[in-house]
Amino acid sequence: MESRTLYAASILFFFFLYLSGSSAMQHGKKTKRQPCKHLKLFFHDIIYNGENAENATSSIVAAPEGANRTILAAQNHFGNVVVFDDPITLDNNLHSIPVGRAQGMYIYDKKDTFCSWLGFTFVLNSTDHQGTINFIGADPLLMKTRDISVVGGTGDFAMARGIATLMTDAYEGEVYFRLRVDIKLYECW
Amino acid sequence: MESRTLYAASILFFFFLYLSGSSAMQHGKKTKRQPCKHLKLFFHDIIYNGENAENATSSIVAAPEGANRTILAAQNHFGNVVVFDDPITLDNNLHSIPVGRAQGMYIYDKKDTFCSWLGFTFVLNSTDHQGTINFIGADPLLMKTRDISVVGGTGDFAMARGIATLMTDAYEGEVYFRLRVDIKLYECW
Amino acid sequence: MESRTLYAASILFFFFLYLSGSSAMQHGKKTKRQPCKHLKLFFHDIIYNGENAENATSSIVAAPEGANRTILAAQNHFGNVVVFDDPITLDNNLHSIPVGRAQGMYIYDKKDTFCSWLGFTFVLNSTDHQGTINFIGADPLLMKTRDISVVGGTGDFAMARGIATLMTDAYEGEVYFRLRVDIKLYECW
Repeated sequence: MESRTLYAASILFFFFLYLSGSSAMQHGKKTKRQPCKHLKLFFHDIIYNGENAENATSSIVAAPEGANRTILAAQNHFGNVVVFDDPITLDNNLHSIPVGRAQGMYIYDKKDTFCSWLGFTFVLNSTDHQGTINFIGADPLLMKTRDISVVGGTGDFAMARGIATLMTDAYEGEVYFRLRVDIKLYECW
Repeated sequence: MESRTLYAASILFFFFLYLSGSSAMQHGKKTKRQPCKHLKLFFHDIIYNGENAENATSSIVAAPEGANRTILAAQNHFGNVVVFDDPITLDNNLHSIPVGRAQGMYIYDKKDTFCSWLGFTFVLNSTDHQGTINFIGADPLLMKTRDISVVGGTGDFAMARGIATLMTDAYEGEVYFRLRVDIKLYECW
Repeated sequence: MESRTLYAASILFFFFLYLSGSSAMQHGKKTKRQPCKHLKLFFHDIIYNGENAENATSSIVAAPEGANRTILAAQNHFGNVVVFDDPITLDNNLHSIPVGRAQGMYIYDKKDTFCSWLGFTFVLNSTDHQGTINFIGADPLLMKTRDISVVGGTGDFAMARGIATLMTDAYEGEVYFRLRVDIKLYECW
């Protein structure tokens, strides 16, 4: 009798051990470092320079005293605010069919090196993804990789949080650049 | 004897089943989709147009080359940055007693349609709510409803996260608009 | 026999009670209000006024109609957008060795009092901390303490969330101010 009771108790024991364990796996931030979603996307920025109105996807809208809004400011563009609406593609080809738009602004915020501050949204609209991902963070442009925060999302990305790694994939004069964005979401619905 | 022991074990079993279940309800993001707080508020934006200094609650502060700061820019206002301090009300009446202020900025960020990018804070100060709610996101104005992210909060909304649905409740020329904001918080303290 | 079995069951009972309890402590937002990280830092802002180009760490880049970009606007600077790259120090001395830079923007967003809206990043680069902390929120400058949101982080502060309390530690004319920032992170990796 005793052995049968202990056997039942043992089953209970391991059952709850399993429950507790899986609970810790799900919720314990210490143990869960695998992204729940992972996207690799590119976006393309063509800045207005007074001559490319038709193709331009971004525009300087603010500048410090002494600077204008068709030429990026001296001192590493410190003080320029740029508003953008850039196509997002699955590969590095500007002419691929866009899967969405990157919309928001960047601010050049350092005098002694190229560095910007970003606030923007990926508005994705494709068969794979419908929804938005919101980003903010510092972007020290000359570093090979830069991490910014995914601070929220909507639609397919509702309540998302994570980290996005930016890489400059191309930089042509002061008119075109292409960023590769490696988005790792660690909180998903 | 055995039956009594198994009876005790069964009680334990269901007790822990209950604990585990409620734990999953509380923490499992898959199962918990009910907002922990839900607010419906309106805010009212009166943009400065050179003649309404007394009533205006917002002002164009940046514009692309060729545009000025009293008339919204051509091409769907692309490139305009607007700073605002708008009254928040419980109903759709501009003259109701405000329960707080919506403070921040919006940026018109598309040439081919009306679309803006928002970064702002609800500073609530009423008998019901004391605290702030921070929002960012894309706002494609012509859609009936648009979702943005609640990325944080303070005071009564400490550590809040969620999703806010914006609806244009009124739009009068290019001087006044009223947004209805349906705030669903899914993370609360 | 019965007593031994009940004894075993009791051990199980308290073992799982302990597991459930610690789980609630770890995950239940109601009970866990101790920050997982706590930093106290200062940052220093020297605004460009047309004469201090060498020392200035920030610059007015946008202003409402009628205002310029070397003198802060009338009406409590409503509508001024300032881009900054400010040194962060461990104490209140501007000349201490910086442990990082505060980069981003502030926007004066009220006509009837001093108030700003902040979007910025702490880029920390010292032996103690390597990583970034991203902030947004409203900053009613005349209040003794103001709370804003930590909405994300990278590096040592990966996935951080929390609340930062700002205190004006010094304010000299309209050229220099120093903020004390008390950062309490409630979500850490």
